[in-house]
Parts: sequence; C-alpha cells; structure tokens
Amino acid sequence: MTAQVRPKILPATPSAVNPPLLIGDILKSGVRMAGDNPIVYRDLSRHSYSEFQARVHQLAHLLTRQGVQAGDVVAVLDWDSHRYLECFFAIPMIGAVLHTVNVRLAPEQILYTMDHAEDVFVLSHQEFLPLLEPLAEKLPHIKGYLLCQDTPEEVKTSLPLVGEYESLLAEQPQHYDFPTFDENAVATLFYTTGTTGNPKGVFFTHRQLVLHTLGEANILQAPGFDLLSRDKVYMPITPMFHVHAWGIPYTATLMGCTQVYPGRYEPEMLVKLLVKEKVDFSHCVPTLLNMVVAAEAISSGKVKLEGWKVLVGGSALPQGLAKKAWGLGIDTRTAYGMSETCPLLTAAVLPKDINDADFDTQLPWRCKTGVAVPFVDLQVVDESGQPLPQDGESVGEVRVRAPWLTQAYYKEEARSEELWQDGWLHTGDVATIDDRGFLQIRDRIKDVIKTGGEWLSSLELENLISQFPGIAEVAVVGVADAQWGERPAALVVATDPSNPPETPAIQAHLQKFVDQGKINKWAIPEKILLVDEIPKTSVGKLNKKVIRQELA
Amino acid sequence: MTAQVRPKILPATPSAVNPPLLIGDILKSGVRMAGDNPIVYRDLSRHSYSEFQARVHQLAHLLTRQGVQAGDVVAVLDWDSHRYLECFFAIPMIGAVLHTVNVRLAPEQILYTMDHAEDVFVLSHQEFLPLLEPLAEKLPHIKGYLLCQDTPEEVKTSLPLVGEYESLLAEQPQHYDFPTFDENAVATLFYTTGTTGNPKGVFFTHRQLVLHTLGEANILQAPGFDLLSRDKVYMPITPMFHVHAWGIPYTATLMGCTQVYPGRYEPEMLVKLLVKEKVDFSHCVPTLLNMVVAAEAISSGKVKLEGWKVLVGGSALPQGLAKKAWGLGIDTRTAYGMSETCPLLTAAVLPKDINDADFDTQLPWRCKTGVAVPFVDLQVVDESGQPLPQDGESVGEVRVRAPWLTQAYYKEEARSEELWQDGWLHTGDVATIDDRGFLQIRDRIKDVIKTGGEWLSSLELENLISQFPGIAEVAVVGVADAQWGERPAALVVATDPSNPPETPAIQAHLQKFVDQGKINKWAIPEKILLVDEIPKTSVGKLNKKVIRQELA
Repeated sequence: MTAQVRPKILPATPSAVNPPLLIGDILKSGVRMAGDNPIVYRDLSRHSYSEFQARVHQLAHLLTRQGVQAGDVVAVLDWDSHRYLECFFAIPMIGAVLHTVNVRLAPEQILYTMDHAEDVFVLSHQEFLPLLEPLAEKLPHIKGYLLCQDTPEEVKTSLPLVGEYESLLAEQPQHYDFPTFDENAVATLFYTTGTTGNPKGVFFTHRQLVLHTLGEANILQAPGFDLLSRDKVYMPITPMFHVHAWGIPYTATLMGCTQVYPGRYEPEMLVKLLVKEKVDFSHCVPTLLNMVVAAEAISSGKVKLEGWKVLVGGSALPQGLAKKAWGLGIDTRTAYGMSETCPLLTAAVLPKDINDADFDTQLPWRCKTGVAVPFVDLQVVDESGQPLPQDGESVGEVRVRAPWLTQAYYKEEARSEELWQDGWLHTGDVATIDDRGFLQIRDRIKDVIKTGGEWLSSLELENLISQFPGIAEVAVVGVADAQWGERPAALVVATDPSNPPETPAIQAHLQKFVDQGKINKWAIPEKILLVDEIPKTSVGKLNKKVIRQELA
Repeated sequence: MTAQVRPKILPATPSAVNPPLLIGDILKSGVRMAGDNPIVYRDLSRHSYSEFQARVHQLAHLLTRQGVQAGDVVAVLDWDSHRYLECFFAIPMIGAVLHTVNVRLAPEQILYTMDHAEDVFVLSHQEFLPLLEPLAEKLPHIKGYLLCQDTPEEVKTSLPLVGEYESLLAEQPQHYDFPTFDENAVATLFYTTGTTGNPKGVFFTHRQLVLHTLGEANILQAPGFDLLSRDKVYMPITPMFHVHAWGIPYTATLMGCTQVYPGRYEPEMLVKLLVKEKVDFSHCVPTLLNMVVAAEAISSGKVKLEGWKVLVGGSALPQGLAKKAWGLGIDTRTAYGMSETCPLLTAAVLPKDINDADFDTQLPWRCKTGVAVPFVDLQVVDESGQPLPQDGESVGEVRVRAPWLTQAYYKEEARSEELWQDGWLHTGDVATIDDRGFLQIRDRIKDVIKTGGEWLSSLELENLISQFPGIAEVAVVGVADAQWGERPAALVVATDPSNPPETPAIQAHLQKFVDQGKINKWAIPEKILLVDEIPKTSVGKLNKKVIRQELA
C-alpha cells in the first residue's frame, strides 16, 4: 500500500449541483440520439424511443400506484422483451431494485432467490404463472403480481394479479417526476449459481451500471472490435436475466440503437428477426452460436447471415467454431466477465496490425478474451498473489478491481469475504496474459486437470479436439487416477451421428500437437466417449460437475 | 423539486475495493490499447505509449524530489508538447493540481493567476522565462522553476532553475507507486477571462475529468460525428492551456491514438505535421480554421488536406467557412462548451438521415452546435427559468447541469453563486433548440442587439454576411441609437484588399434574406465598415467589447 496523501478538495458553491450518476440519464441520452430508431418486440410491437421513454414514465406511475417504493425489490420473470427493457429503467429510476429472476433455475431455487431478495412485487410473463402459483404462499412479502402477456386470452391463476401490463400502462400519465438520489443506491440484484450451496445474490448500483455502460459503449465502438454503434441493429441472445444481458441493453440505449427483443429463444423466431430486422449485432454463449451454425437453414445457406457480428462470452470460443461461423459470414469476437463483474472485464479488441491481417491470422486473437477494458485493473497472479510475467505461458489466477464489481454477495458475509480476499475480486479462473496484454482463460481453477504433477487446461484440450472434423461439441474433465492423480477424459458429440469420429483418429489428431510441442503427451485422453448430448448448466455452459460425477 | 426517497444502499464487504475514478486509469488504458502508436512532438521526438507511461512515472519522481506534494499547485507554461501531456497526467496523479497557465494573457494577468492559484512550482518553456523573471519576486510561494527547452543551448536567467526537464527526467526511476485518493480531489485549475474583473479560476476533479473523458470518447466515435478513434492521428490546434485542449488529449490517451503536439502554432510547422504525420483529426476555433483555409499553400491546392477532420468550437462556425473548408477536402463538425464546463456540452452528431444526405443538406446541421451529449442536462429557458419549446425559434438562455461542471470559481464566492444561481450553471449564451434537439447558439446574452424592441442575433447576421463573396471575416455589434435603442454595425475584412466588397452590395445580399423571411428588415446594418483586422481576445475570439468601444 502507498502512503496516504492529502490532495486538494475544494468546496462547491452552495447553489452548485453535481448530478449523481443515475440510470435515467442513459435513457435520456438514447432519446436524444435515436432519431426514428425503434424498440422491436418479436413481430408483435415497435416503439420509438420517445414512446419507450413515455412507457418508462408510465411504468413508474403504475409501480408507484401499486405501492412500490424506493428501496423495494421488484422481481421480473419474462423472456427478452420491450417490457423487460422498460423494467431495466423504470424500476431503478424510482429508487427501487430490479431483481431479474433466472427463470431457468429449478423452482425451489427460484423460490430461494425470491425469498432471499425479499421481493415485494412481481412482473411475470403468463408462461411463468404455473411456476409461481405453488411458490406464492411461501412468499408472503409479495404484495401483487402484474401479468405480462403477448396474447389477449384470459388467464386463470390463483395468484393475486393486479392487472395486465399493457392495459394498466395505458392508464398512466406519460410524465413521472423521477427523484434524484445517491448514485450508490442499488439498482439491480440477481443470483448466480455455483456448483455448491445456495444461489448467491450479486447487486449493482446506479453508479456502477452507468460507468459500466460508458466503458462498454467505448469498447463496442472501438476499431478492432467495432460491434455496435448508433446506426446498428442490436438483438440479444443472452437472456436479460443474465447479468442484464451483459449490460448491452443499457449500452444500446445510451447509443440510441435499434433494439430487437426476441422473447423466448425459439430458433425460427430468432432467424426470422435476424433477417427481417437486419440485425447487425448479437451476443451469446458458444453453445448457442453452435446451435445457430448447425441449424439446417443456416448451414445449408438457405438463410444468409452475412455481416452478422456476434460477441461470444460465458465460455471459451473454440477456434473451430469461430472458423465455421466465419465460413457462414458470421463475424465473432470474444469478451470476458462474470456475474460478479457486471460483467465486462476484457474484450478481444484486435490490435491494428492483427485487425488489418487475414482471418487466419486473426483467429487465435479473436478467440482469446483480449485486453482489460478501460478502468479494469486485472492481474494474473501466482499462489502468493504476485503478478506473473506477461509471456503467454505463465498460468495463474485472474483477480480484478474495477469501478463496477459487486461489493458483496447479498447477505452472505463469509462468501463475500472469500470473493474479495486480499482486496481483489477472485474470478476463480486461471489464465495467461501475453506480451500484448491479451488474456487467455485456461480454465476454471476447479476444472484444471492435475496429471503427473502438471496442470492441464481442460479448455485447451477441448479447443484442440473441437478442430477435428465431425465433432460438434466436446467436454474434457479430469477423472481420478491412482497413478497420475488425474487423467483427462473427453465426451464428444458427433456432427453426423451415423458417421461418428473414432477415438484413435482423435488421438492421432492430438498427437500432431504433441509433436509440435504445443501440448504434453500426457494430455492425450485414453478415454474419449461418444455421447448424444453433453450435460449443461441452466445457463448453457458445460456442466463439468455433472460430467465428472457421471464419469466417476 | 421531487420528494426525498430512500433507495437501498448496501454495505460492501470489508475486504472489497471500489476504485475511485482517477486520471491514472486513462493512461493505463492508452498503454493497453495503443500498440505501437507514438506521441510525436514537432519534428523533435517520438515516444511509444510505454515510454510515455515511463516518463510520466519519472516526472512524478522528479516533482516529488523537488518537494511537490499532494495538494500543491504546479504551474505549466509551455506550448503544446509531449511534456505538457506528461504534466496532464503526472501532476494530478501524485495528488497535486495542474495549473495550465494561459501564456497569452497580459503579464499582469499571468501574475494575478499564478499568485491567486498559489503555485508552488513552475515548469516553463524557455521562451517564457523573460516573462516570468520580473514576476518572480512577487510570487514568493514558488519553490523552483523547471526549464523546458527544445534546443540544448544554455539559458541565462535570474530565475532559480532546478534544472532542465529532459536531463532531470532521465535520472529518475521508471516506476512510481502512485497513490490512490478521493476522486473528488482537484486535478486541474486554470483561469478564464471575462470582459470585466480579474480572471476567474475554474477547477476540475479527477472524477469530473474521467467522466468527461468517457463521455467525450463515446461521442467522438459516434456515427454522425466520427472524428477520433484508436487508429486515427490526433493533433490539437487549441492550446493545451485552454480547457485542457477541450479534454481531447485525455480522450485520445484513453483510446491509445497517435498524438501529435505541434509546439507553438507556426503555420509552416502545422502544415508540415499535418501532412507528414497524416493527421486525421484536429480541433480549433473558427479564426484558426479561417487562417488555415486562407493560407496560400492550402487555398492554392499545393498542400492537400483531403480527409482532415476538424472539430470547431469556441465561437460559431459560419456556414461560409464550413463550405470553403469542404471545398478543400476538410470535414468540419461543431461542438459547444466553455471553460466552466470542462468543456463538452453539445456536439453536432448528425442524425442518420442527415448524415446520409449530401453536403448542402448537412451544412446547417454541421454549423449548429448539436445535441446535448450523454449526461448533460441542458435547457433553453425564458427569463423566469421556464424551459422554452424545442421549435428552433424560441430564444432563451442556455443553462446546464452535468457531472463535469466547475463547482465554483476558485476563491470567488459571489461570482460562484452568480454562475450557479438557482442550481443551474448559467452559460451566458442565448440559443434555440429545434425539434431534433439541436442547439443553435444565437449570441452571448451581452452581445444580443436590441433594436426596435426586438432581439437580433449578432451571430446570425455575421453568418449571413460571411456568405457574401470576398468577405474573409466579419463582426457585428450593437451601437447605441437614439431612435431604435441599438442598431447593428458590421466590421468586415476583405479576402482581397485590392478588391473589397461594397456596402450596398452586402446590404442587397442581406435584403434577399429579408425577402425570404429569414431576418427582419431592421437587421440590415446601415454601417458596414471595411477594416484590415478585427480585434480579437487572447483566445482568438472576436473581441466585441473592444469593437463596441471603437465604434462608440
């Protein structure tokens, strides 16, 4: 630590106003910048930014009239929609907290999170009413449920509905006098699931979200990344309950972009919107990109996605997948972050020389997770907390500081201190940094395979195996071994189940990388199992905990 | 005012770190983003960003060893240079305050500002030593003077020099352990001159400069503005002592752009650097742009500036000048702000439809000052403080709030309260806003001409007169008139002094606009005086106070 210093702090004149950083200003910016750009919901609605703003004001009136107050937590269960975007603004703008419920969790986990968050009001898509009905009596804090529906049919439910979103909204005045308050007020809250224990609540303040939005907007516009700017069309394919869809709805609103919300992710609707709305930019996990490139309409060339840019995160983007996507005209980039980090930490902003080079030169750079974005202080450290050399080889844990990291797990003192041990947020990822500052995630600390005294990255091995023809998907885990401690084992899904790749051929493919000195010979798994499907977590990541259990 | 609300504020876990917004992170970002981009000083030096960073650390050591401490004020007198850029970072990063001395002020004004600021250490270009020598005994606070020089000749001075910048820098270690401190610490201080009274000190905090930088970076990259991004080359032609060259050196550093510093503005050196360094982007006041387009080498086409983008601010950009520049391949945009506002308030980010249109359609939009940038709350209000309709016609005062406005004039209680009367920063400008949110400055409140009970904008009249062939420059002021209260009078400079435009022809030119209903018939000045030169302020703006005095 450095010595304490006393810089000059000067008083403001009594009448001066120094506005706090509040989410409402993001919306105001969008309205000024957007021109005629619309907010689109499936093939069901289009609103101009001015209408969007008026609806946010109306939603604020609606909530206030239902008794929602500053400091209250309001739960939303919806697929990606214009309504959800309106909640992103209206709920925090009245000083309440938006709880984005992960509807993919098991019902008892949803119950846990809604109880733990002390939700007092719920907005729910009609689809989730059956899920909520049995939970309601265990959630006595909840004062009312507001129905969100796409179709006008009458809904039968035991829940105490206060009405329907659109019809109640229409009754409200179009101007709400939003309060000004401390920028450190909590704006959003959601839960992240680990492989053990209860879901953990992470929360972000207005200040954090504003700074994250400004930082993300800069990076998304930067040359060498260049994914989103005002005149582009944006459609998320990462759910809005998932770290605010990586914060990009806020960023797109700041810019005034056209935004397209696809509702529940149905392949047909996604493709229809991509084509009809001329979507320029989306973001998703590799699994979803894999589904897209494998979709018959797309792989056959019937539907062309030429020029579609996709930011991939959540897990490593295998080079094989990036290349396959490129062949279909899909331009992929990667970024890195996690629920606890709002999420943006690094982005594969290609340096000018790489950006000017051909695709094959770019490929490895596109698949690393890139450089720390402005205001992120990121280190790769050894076990004693010493930063490792930026040599692309030294592997250590990633720890970070930034002005937008959750400052605790909600009401979880011990786990909060564990997360922030020594004043750094511990990501639980191991990685290298190269001499150009590019981070490459090697593995989750707990997924690293320790074999014969060496660390072996399960991700690296997955990446190499994915490059073998005929492999649609692959997962590598360590299984206990009496002699070596652990040995790698792979699960593979064949692209064409009638003509699956054979284990010796995959091993021979890996032997080439051994011969090139890229991996050690003990990285080649003896056990390569052909499976129909690889277990996934609720957010579409490989569920290595389950895979390990099945293989054990 | 709205009612007070109580949002949810949650405690951070004890080990969590929430980094303050400090200028040092702007530099770190630049180093990560820049690749091999250089910082260029005239034809004298080139440094990589890594070297730039090391030099900032060295400068911090140098200053510390000279006894400069956090909270101290350090004055810099230099033309635009790599040294100045290093001061932009090193001085605030040790917790000290950078006083950017306006070297164009009269010596007694410079003395006033250095005394009022309580400068304790001075970095001065050798050129300003003769200026400083007679002031030194009246500035007893100053502990030492550091010489900045471009050529190695020995300097004779009565000032207590501590040494020379480059040679002392070379002796320092390349790593300084910069402290962390309150983001509300003052980082910069400089003086703005009005037409009455002493210069007024405005100051900006780390937080304000960081937020201004993030906001400016977003806008400079936005489509419809698109002036600066990582792979572009930047050269200021607004002095660095002038509202930190509009903050753009900070913004360019955040992005990692190539930066070119031209030293003293000498036409030959400017043109040489523009061409040799392939400068993409500069910013200046209209007067300077006027000088450039009038320069023989450029107007003759001998030197081509095709593709050079210029952000114009400080005064209105006349359409005639923008058009002339366009004819030479120079792409102009405008922005609006002032010393008190850090400065960015609005920017002429062209809406998509205008941006896609031809130049003549764009011209009026390019010359308005555009929309309020994100996080700026800007109103045009009537005399009772009520916002006026956005109709492009209702004229009122511009008042603003934003997270980067000076919170007072330094040690000037009464003038601070006047600036911030009613909780809004009063710009002293009158303007209209149109239905697309574009601000058009009509005049300084004090320069508005009141004739026959009507307000007449001196700027609008200048703009129309400037479109008449053969007019290089024009100034319009009100002169007292017994019958009408005031009447407009114009000073004009001929492009070709041997063939000056004639008053009746100019009046006939204006009559066309009367016929079109654009101006009232009493807007036509009876008095149009041909002059060799128009009086300017120290910052190159038309000095209307002097003009009025001369005409009176």
